Amino acid sequence: MPPQRATLLQVAQRAGVSRSTASFVLAGRHVDMRISEDARQRVLRAAQELDYRPNLMARSLRTKVTKTIALVSDTLASDPYAGRAIHGGLAAAVAHGHLLFIGETEGDAVVEEKLISDFLDRQVDAFVYASMFTRYVRVPKLLKGHPVVLLNCLTRAARPAYHSVIPDELAAGWSAAKVVIDGGHRDGIHLVGNPAQHVFAGRERLAGIREAFTAAGIKLAGTIECDWWPDSAYEAVTRALAGGPPPKALICFNDRVALGVYQALREAGLSIPGDVSVVSFDDSDLAAWLRPQLTSISLPHYQLGWQAVELLLGEAGRSEPAIRRIPMPVRSRGSTGKP
Amino acid sequence: MPPQRATLLQVAQRAGVSRSTASFVLAGRHVDMRISEDARQRVLRAAQELDYRPNLMARSLRTKVTKTIALVSDTLASDPYAGRAIHGGLAAAVAHGHLLFIGETEGDAVVEEKLISDFLDRQVDAFVYASMFTRYVRVPKLLKGHPVVLLNCLTRAARPAYHSVIPDELAAGWSAAKVVIDGGHRDGIHLVGNPAQHVFAGRERLAGIREAFTAAGIKLAGTIECDWWPDSAYEAVTRALAGGPPPKALICFNDRVALGVYQALREAGLSIPGDVSVVSFDDSDLAAWLRPQLTSISLPHYQLGWQAVELLLGEAGRSEPAIRRIPMPVRSRGSTGKP
Repeated sequence: MPPQRATLLQVAQRAGVSRSTASFVLAGRHVDMRISEDARQRVLRAAQELDYRPNLMARSLRTKVTKTIALVSDTLASDPYAGRAIHGGLAAAVAHGHLLFIGETEGDAVVEEKLISDFLDRQVDAFVYASMFTRYVRVPKLLKGHPVVLLNCLTRAARPAYHSVIPDELAAGWSAAKVVIDGGHRDGIHLVGNPAQHVFAGRERLAGIREAFTAAGIKLAGTIECDWWPDSAYEAVTRALAGGPPPKALICFNDRVALGVYQALREAGLSIPGDVSVVSFDDSDLAAWLRPQLTSISLPHYQLGWQAVELLLGEAGRSEPAIRRIPMPVRSRGSTGKP
Repeated sequence: MPPQRATLLQVAQRAGVSRSTASFVLAGRHVDMRISEDARQRVLRAAQELDYRPNLMARSLRTKVTKTIALVSDTLASDPYAGRAIHGGLAAAVAHGHLLFIGETEGDAVVEEKLISDFLDRQVDAFVYASMFTRYVRVPKLLKGHPVVLLNCLTRAARPAYHSVIPDELAAGWSAAKVVIDGGHRDGIHLVGNPAQHVFAGRERLAGIREAFTAAGIKLAGTIECDWWPDSAYEAVTRALAGGPPPKALICFNDRVALGVYQALREAGLSIPGDVSVVSFDDSDLAAWLRPQLTSISLPHYQLGWQAVELLLGEAGRSEPAIRRIPMPVRSRGSTGKP
């Protein structure tokens, strides 16, 4: 369900500037219009927070396309939702008068080297190096000396050489726990999923959840272990319900897990949120389609892509390389309530 | 849930050739290896039917990238599932040693003209002109004289000037009806959705459904009108169930509608497929996640993208321009049964 598109006026209001100021900033005319860097940053932030899609026509008639960037990923275009990062990156590229190449490597280092060298032959002058799942990467040597921003991945270097844009999964874990805690839950709180230590999102979500419960002095009742898929979650929760007292709140590691949880609770005659509160991560389309609608911590794919290209081509990119953690907002819906 | 990847051996077996022949064909070495055009076509068809992803490494080390193509769409990259067409197009482009630009116009003719002229400035020599929804289009004048294939759209011209690749929605409608008819249903069969005459997919699906029922001498009980979204379908079916005898079979216009139908039937205490059979279109991820799993007629996004680029760059493209209707296979699952 595409959200209502934000207008330029809404961006201006959120940034606390006039409509013309916002327009000039988004058209890249902040220098000749003498707009302060502070105001410019506020407009860019508001545009990003509101998912503002610039008016391509106005912009493209004003700018001359001379450059190209390439988005090199393992398998980003394959995934229905991660693919939205490509869309965000594309919008930001066009906003800066650039055309966008895309290429996939399937994670193969030899393919990657060939692809990047082909892009360099075609005079690509800046790169987004992206991963389908958030993870640690080694940046290919060929990219050394070229402008690069990492999208949904990061390096282990103590002092990063490149800007890196990742979702703030740690804070997201904290947010999910807070939904349950603020709802008044104190016991019967279980996690559902497999917080495998090698999966970045799982590890960070778990750490955030634990921190929040520790801070609130609440002890988790346990973890119902399953894969991150509906059928696995359905089976694991069905087994757990047969073997003990019903839970009061379930924190699912993603929306697909939550779907399986819904199915298992319904079959056991438990109501959501009357008997059991359910909260989840990702905020995929599914979350709004379930009955009741699912409270979920949103993975902002579009903003991740937008922000990566903005860092690559905008003035913000000239700042010290750092890891930018993009907030994952809470989408509160009907699946969570009081115990 | 990514399907298991097909192997080169499976492609060879389906095409009735040896593994090396399939390998040579997919590496573009059919001329020096003296492989017949007939065998080559069989291999390419098998590769497409099996969703075979060529080994990029082997290929890219053998070919020299010299050319670029551009995929120009209204909003293709925005949609989770339609975005898979980009992935299919990308795979075929790489298989032919091409790099891929992508650009979006949001349906604005002025943006489109500017974007295409920018691509031409960047020496793009072939274009995929794509639409998010299947529809009639006018091909931009700027593209005249350049190799173009239409993806998920077509022109009204009696003699098409370009190859056009669209899903075979008419046959899909027939297939959905056949699932119900072959299940032994003769009455209580309703459509759910809004078969608006201006939506290509809706119109063709409806025509196919009607043809099949007429051929079988069966009369549809009626149409439960709603938008193509879960909540609208849920409300419409809930109202319909309150006002008359329960249906025996429901043909939903897409999987999102089917989700709303599941929710309404469950609340009314009707079981699927015991009381009511449900069949749908699209075969999105959702179809396999519902309980029972949903029988759905699959929209082959990846193949549409692959086939469009294959027609653009392969030898098949030198044939007379025509509309290629890509089959929409039936995914039979647990939601359909006997009356």
